[in-house]
Amino acid sequence: MTDKPEKAKEKTNKANARLPRGFGDRGAGEIAATRRMLDRIRAVYERYGFEAVETPAIEYTDALGKFLPDQDRPNEGVFSFQDDDEQWLSLRYDLTAPLARYVAEHFDALPKPYRSYRVGWVFRNEKPGPGRFRQFMQFDADTVGSSSPAADAEICMMAADTMEELGLRGHYVIKINNRKILDGLLETIGLGGEAHAGKRLTVLRAIDKYDRLERRGVEQLLGQGRKDESGDFTPGAGLDPQQITKVLDYVDFQLADKTGDLEGVFEDWRRIVGSNGAGDEGVAELSEIASLCRSAGYASDRIRFESSVVRGLEYYTGPVFETDLTFEIKDEEGRAVRFGSVAAGGRYDGLVGRFRNENVPATGFSIGISRLMAALSHLGTAGEPPRGPVVVTVFDRERISDYQKMVTSLRNTGIRAELYLGSGKMGAQLKYADKRGAPCVVIQGGDEKARGEVQIKDLIEGAKAAAAISSREEWREGRPAQIAVHESKLVDAVREILDRHAIRWDYETS
Amino acid sequence: MTDKPEKAKEKTNKANARLPRGFGDRGAGEIAATRRMLDRIRAVYERYGFEAVETPAIEYTDALGKFLPDQDRPNEGVFSFQDDDEQWLSLRYDLTAPLARYVAEHFDALPKPYRSYRVGWVFRNEKPGPGRFRQFMQFDADTVGSSSPAADAEICMMAADTMEELGLRGHYVIKINNRKILDGLLETIGLGGEAHAGKRLTVLRAIDKYDRLERRGVEQLLGQGRKDESGDFTPGAGLDPQQITKVLDYVDFQLADKTGDLEGVFEDWRRIVGSNGAGDEGVAELSEIASLCRSAGYASDRIRFESSVVRGLEYYTGPVFETDLTFEIKDEEGRAVRFGSVAAGGRYDGLVGRFRNENVPATGFSIGISRLMAALSHLGTAGEPPRGPVVVTVFDRERISDYQKMVTSLRNTGIRAELYLGSGKMGAQLKYADKRGAPCVVIQGGDEKARGEVQIKDLIEGAKAAAAISSREEWREGRPAQIAVHESKLVDAVREILDRHAIRWDYETS
Repeated sequence: MTDKPEKAKEKTNKANARLPRGFGDRGAGEIAATRRMLDRIRAVYERYGFEAVETPAIEYTDALGKFLPDQDRPNEGVFSFQDDDEQWLSLRYDLTAPLARYVAEHFDALPKPYRSYRVGWVFRNEKPGPGRFRQFMQFDADTVGSSSPAADAEICMMAADTMEELGLRGHYVIKINNRKILDGLLETIGLGGEAHAGKRLTVLRAIDKYDRLERRGVEQLLGQGRKDESGDFTPGAGLDPQQITKVLDYVDFQLADKTGDLEGVFEDWRRIVGSNGAGDEGVAELSEIASLCRSAGYASDRIRFESSVVRGLEYYTGPVFETDLTFEIKDEEGRAVRFGSVAAGGRYDGLVGRFRNENVPATGFSIGISRLMAALSHLGTAGEPPRGPVVVTVFDRERISDYQKMVTSLRNTGIRAELYLGSGKMGAQLKYADKRGAPCVVIQGGDEKARGEVQIKDLIEGAKAAAAISSREEWREGRPAQIAVHESKLVDAVREILDRHAIRWDYETS
Repeated sequence: MTDKPEKAKEKTNKANARLPRGFGDRGAGEIAATRRMLDRIRAVYERYGFEAVETPAIEYTDALGKFLPDQDRPNEGVFSFQDDDEQWLSLRYDLTAPLARYVAEHFDALPKPYRSYRVGWVFRNEKPGPGRFRQFMQFDADTVGSSSPAADAEICMMAADTMEELGLRGHYVIKINNRKILDGLLETIGLGGEAHAGKRLTVLRAIDKYDRLERRGVEQLLGQGRKDESGDFTPGAGLDPQQITKVLDYVDFQLADKTGDLEGVFEDWRRIVGSNGAGDEGVAELSEIASLCRSAGYASDRIRFESSVVRGLEYYTGPVFETDLTFEIKDEEGRAVRFGSVAAGGRYDGLVGRFRNENVPATGFSIGISRLMAALSHLGTAGEPPRGPVVVTVFDRERISDYQKMVTSLRNTGIRAELYLGSGKMGAQLKYADKRGAPCVVIQGGDEKARGEVQIKDLIEGAKAAAAISSREEWREGRPAQIAVHESKLVDAVREILDRHAIRWDYETS
C-alpha cells in the first residue's frame, strides 16, 4: 500500500457535518430575541398567578397517548424507541399530554385548581417543510381541576394580554368557539354516541381544513373522500348529502360577533345548531365566557366568538380558542395572506381521566414560540441583535499578559471584552473585530507603550465615516474615529464610546 | 355481559401515570432558582465576549461520534433511533460533539477564533442512580480556532469568575493538568503511537477512578483487571509491574502547587515525567497558563495545577480542567465527603477535524447545572422559592364578574393575582390560598358589598400570629391580620401588605 490510497480513504471516512431535515441551529440574535419574548410571556403568566412546572422530554409512549391530527397509526408522528426493559419511550410531541401525566401522578399533593405554565421543546416525527420543523418550542398555560367557564375566559384574557405585552395591539384577535356546539349539531344529524366517535373526528378535521380547501374540498372530505393535486387520496367521513349540507351550512354561516351584538349572535347560533342538550350547553358556556371578558374590558376587537374555529386535536371537549395575527405577509408564491394562528388551546376534560377513575376538567393553551418569533421579526419588534465585545488586539505576542490585564480591567467594570486569541496579524484582528460586531478595538504597539498610551478605534463611528466618505467620493487618508488615551484612562474612554452608541455595558445578573 | 366486568376492565385499561427511571419533573422553586443561576452564568460568559449559539437535541448518530467514558459498544449510552430514510439519529449526549458539527458545517461563515456558549438538556441512556439522571442540563463555553494556551487560561479564569458570581468564594478551586504530560509518561514506558491508543485510554480511565478506588484499585485496573464488590469484572490495561509503578508514582506524587511555588512544581513535574517531547510541551503550556492566570490576579487558592486531574473523555488532547467544590457533604452512608466536581473541560484539538481535512484547535468547558444547583441549595444560596399570587375568593357565585374585575385591577398594576376557579366553599378557598403560598386573600360577602368594602386577610401575618398564640397556648377567637378597606382602596392595601413582607410585585419583563 502506498500513501495516496490511504489518504483518499481517510478523506471519504470523514464524518458529514450536517443536520437531519427539519432540525435547525439558532444564532445569538435569535436566542436573545427569543429570551426577551419568553421573559415577557412569563411575566404575564406569573401576573395571572400561574406557576412554573416542567416535565422531561422523554415519557412512556402509553402515558403520552396518541392525539396528533392526521396521525392515526401507532408511533406515526412521534419519535419512539425501546428502553432496555423493552418498554416503549417517546419524545413528547406537545406539552399537554405530559402535563396530564404529571397532574395524575401528583394529584393529591397539588393545589386544586392547579394553574401552571411551562416552556420547552417538543418533537414531531413528521415530514418537514418550509417553516415546519421536527423540533420546535411551545409555551403552555393550563388550569386543571376547574370546570368553570371563568377558567376558559381567563385563558383567553391572558392570551390577549400576552399579545399586548409583545406590542401586538391591533394586530391580533382571540377567536373562541365550543366543541359542544359541533357535537350538538352532529347529534342532530344522527352522529352522536360512542359508535360514531371516529366519524365525528373525521368531520372535525375536514372542517379544520376549511381555510385551505374551501367549501368544495371540505364537502368531498365529508362525503366519499378527496384526491389532492399530487394524486394522494384521503378517505372521507361518508356522510349523506343531507348531513353534508347541514354541516356546511353551519361552517359556511361563519357566525361571528364582529359587531359586538353578542346576544343576537348566540341566538343565531342556537337556531342553526337546533335545540339539543350539548349544543345548548355549548352556547351557554360561550355566553358566560363572553360576559366575563366583556365586563373585564375585552371587546370584540380583541376577543371574538366565531363558528369557524374547531382545532384539529382530538382531546378537546368544550371551548376551543385560537390567537390569530391579522396582518398580511407574502406566501411562497408572493400572494398576500393573513399571518394566522400563533397560539391555540381549549378544554380537555378527559385527558387526566385517562389515568384516573374520575374525570378531571382542564383547560389551557399553547403558544408556538418559533411562529410568534417570526411574526415579531416581520413587524420589526423582535429587538436589536446583541453587539459584540470590545476586542483587545495583540500587537506584540510577548506582551500578551499586559493585554490580558487590559481585558480583565474592562470586564471588572462589567464591559464585554475579550483578548484576540487567534494567530492573525493586525489586519486579520481588525477584520475579526468587525465580524464579531465589536463596538471598538484596543491597540497598543511599541510606540504607544513607550508613551504609556493605548489607541482605541471606534468601529461604529468608523463605519459611519467610511460610508459618508465613499458616498461623497472624497476618500482621504487618516484614522477616522480613533483616539489615543493614557493607559489608566482605558476603561473610562471605552465606557464613553459605549455610552455614545447607547450600548448597555453594565449587564445585570437577573 | 354485565356491567361489573366492563367496569373492572376499564379500570385495568387506565394508563399508568409514571416516568421512566432517570427522568424527573421540576417544580416552580427549582425552575426559578435554576433560571437565576443560568442568568448569572450567562452574564459572566457575555462579559468574556462569548456569544450564544444553540443546536437541536437530535443529530445524525455518526455526526455525534462515540466519546462517552465506559461506553465502547455502539449506541451504548446514547438514545438512538432510525429516521424514515433508515439513517440513525441520536439524542445528544453532551454539547461538545454537536458544537464540533456546527463549527464544521458553518466553518467559512464563522469568525475565527469562534467563541460561543450554550445551555441545554443532554441525554444519556445509562443506568440511573441517586443524583444520576438520564436527562440533565449542561452549560458550555468553547473557543474554537485558537491553539494558544491563553484560550485555555481564559476558560479557567472564566470558570473562577462564574463561581465567584454564584457566591462560592472560598468554596471552589479550578484544577488544571495537561493530557500531554500523561502521554509523554506513557511514551517513555513504551505505550506511544497509534497502536497503543486503546491501551492509553484504558490507563486514563483507570487513573480517573483514583479518588474512588485508591491506589490498590487503580493498580489492578492498570494490570490484569479488577473484580468489584458485586462480582463484576473490569478488564485491565495489561501493563507490566514496572510500567504500573511508573504510572502510579506519577499519580501518587500528587504534584500540586498548593504553595504557589509554581516554577519549583513544574521542575518536579518535568523530572518525574522524564525528558520527552510531548511531556515537555505539556509542562510548557501549563507554565504559560499559570503565568497568565497569576498576572491577572488568580492565585493558587482559586486556580491550581494538579497531576491527579485527567478527565475520562477520550477526545481531550491538551490541558484539562475541573472545577471542584471543596466543602463537605454527607454521602449515602452518612460519611463526610467533599462535594467535588461541578464543571470540567479541556482542549479537544481533533474533534472538529473529524469532519474536515485539517485539525481545528479547540478548548472549552461544561458546567453540570443540576449538580451545581444542588451545591447552591446545600449552601443555602439558591434563593427563596417564589411566593404565590394574591387570591380573590368567590363568596357569591352570582357575582363572579365583580371578583374578576378586582383581579384585573390588581394585575393591571403588576400584582400577581388570581380568581379562585374551583368549586369549594370559603374554607376550601382559604386552604387553597395557603397551599399556593398566597401572601393575602381578598373576600367580599354580602355585608361587605353593602358597605362598599372588601376584607383582606394577610396570610403571612396570620401564620405568624397563629404560631405565637399556640406557642403561648393562649388561643383566642378573632381574625388576626385581617383588615377591611373601601373597594376603591383594594390595590393600595394589597400593595402595602406585599411591601410589608418585601414581596416584589412590579415584575419586570427585562
